[in-house]
Amino acid sequence: MKTPTGSKIKAQVWVVENGKKRFRQDHLTTEEPLEIRLVPQNKTVAVTMRTPGADFELAAGFLYSEGIISCREDIRRISYCVDELIDGEQRYNIVNVELRQGLILDLQPLERHFYTNSACGVCGKASLEALRLRGCPVIPHGPVVTPEIIYSLPDKLRSAQGIFTATGGLHAAAVFDTQAKLLNLQEDIGRHNALDKLIGSALLADELPLNNHIVMVSGRSSFEILQKSTAAGVPIVCSVSAPSSLAVSVAQEFGITLIGFLRGQRFNIYSGVERISIG
Amino acid sequence: MKTPTGSKIKAQVWVVENGKKRFRQDHLTTEEPLEIRLVPQNKTVAVTMRTPGADFELAAGFLYSEGIISCREDIRRISYCVDELIDGEQRYNIVNVELRQGLILDLQPLERHFYTNSACGVCGKASLEALRLRGCPVIPHGPVVTPEIIYSLPDKLRSAQGIFTATGGLHAAAVFDTQAKLLNLQEDIGRHNALDKLIGSALLADELPLNNHIVMVSGRSSFEILQKSTAAGVPIVCSVSAPSSLAVSVAQEFGITLIGFLRGQRFNIYSGVERISIG
Repeated sequence: MKTPTGSKIKAQVWVVENGKKRFRQDHLTTEEPLEIRLVPQNKTVAVTMRTPGADFELAAGFLYSEGIISCREDIRRISYCVDELIDGEQRYNIVNVELRQGLILDLQPLERHFYTNSACGVCGKASLEALRLRGCPVIPHGPVVTPEIIYSLPDKLRSAQGIFTATGGLHAAAVFDTQAKLLNLQEDIGRHNALDKLIGSALLADELPLNNHIVMVSGRSSFEILQKSTAAGVPIVCSVSAPSSLAVSVAQEFGITLIGFLRGQRFNIYSGVERISIG
Repeated sequence: MKTPTGSKIKAQVWVVENGKKRFRQDHLTTEEPLEIRLVPQNKTVAVTMRTPGADFELAAGFLYSEGIISCREDIRRISYCVDELIDGEQRYNIVNVELRQGLILDLQPLERHFYTNSACGVCGKASLEALRLRGCPVIPHGPVVTPEIIYSLPDKLRSAQGIFTATGGLHAAAVFDTQAKLLNLQEDIGRHNALDKLIGSALLADELPLNNHIVMVSGRSSFEILQKSTAAGVPIVCSVSAPSSLAVSVAQEFGITLIGFLRGQRFNIYSGVERISIG
């Protein structure tokens, strides 16, 4: 079964190393929503943020591992949606699964236990549009910080992560002021939960928006991390690992400085280079 | 706001190092479902797998970052569910959020874009029960493999991960035979998607259940990873990082050998030690 692959997207990044910056072409991991639909029921059972490729396998595996189908024969046909009303960009983000006639569907577990995610449409453009429609404003200009401030964040995050040291199993999200002073740290097995705890904590203390702050997350920056940061008005978002294509798009669209691969005296800037003061 | 913390659970693990094993007490990261309910609407807006602690902040942050509330004043009260019909274990897994009267709720984005997850109930026990009710069988005895087979998996996974090398942004899930021969590798920005692609691929090739195979995932082992592995009948599940408490419970319940912190000539066994042949 052939599926389109689009797992690498070229991007221009600033590499900051030992206080100097240079421009480089890099590759980003593609992140796009995939909608899994059952036909002819015309029922959406999942919208998941995924990397394109092996989409039919993803749909089949999802239906199997969630207990909706139990064998190969339960699937009659898997295909991309070719509805002419759906524009080109979205077409490869919708997979139609036609099930065997007579298969008794029990979708109730899925419906009872839905977990909301941030996929707002079935292409990256639609996801950005949904954020705009929600009224998320572009982040104002400023603050400007030095590379040294940025370099210092991972060590501070790690030393504050008492739990991480013991179990190695938790993601962290932390908020710093522009002098790299740690203001709050939250941990969770889910990166998005750690960030929600951080934002909720600021909300309950009436400290939103975080317009003069830096947020750092462990692991990768996905669409979801940037969507939440946009909502909270965070101007600088850092991670120790790579951002996705859609994370970079959100950062560019809403004026966020997005930093990745922050390790030692080195990091990449994917968007908003003007907030980092380098000679 | 005080919330119960339960982020560390003690566990007995076998540490295998250079071909020898010893028994050790370790700590696991707690993973439990949290249900966020709006009252008096009595509407569940999310069930998320999280690490207990800062639950009120998590609920507030989730509602804010998803655009359901826009300021501190939109929340009248946050509390744990104290309904007497709900048993003790579940009570701290349900948070009720009472919103300001007159707040106009737009839950439609949440409902349209739900992403199903594996949270089946609002406590770990209920999540296990849901898997049992779905008819997932206990994995049969066997196969038995040597530590050397297990040691060899991470290098094979990494060398096969062409995309990972270029972007650093992708999770991987791979299936091996019991001689450590790589049979399939799938990548995705989401670990659960990579595993669904792997299982879907086996399903479409009519190769399920994977009763004589080893699955290895990058990153952590969460409930979701074990739930999908159980559905696919995988006897040995390995990861380079830590498993969660609930992942270990699923492995124990369904007879899966669960291996974590697999690095170099070393790994931990959290369940099913009988499948690893050590003197």
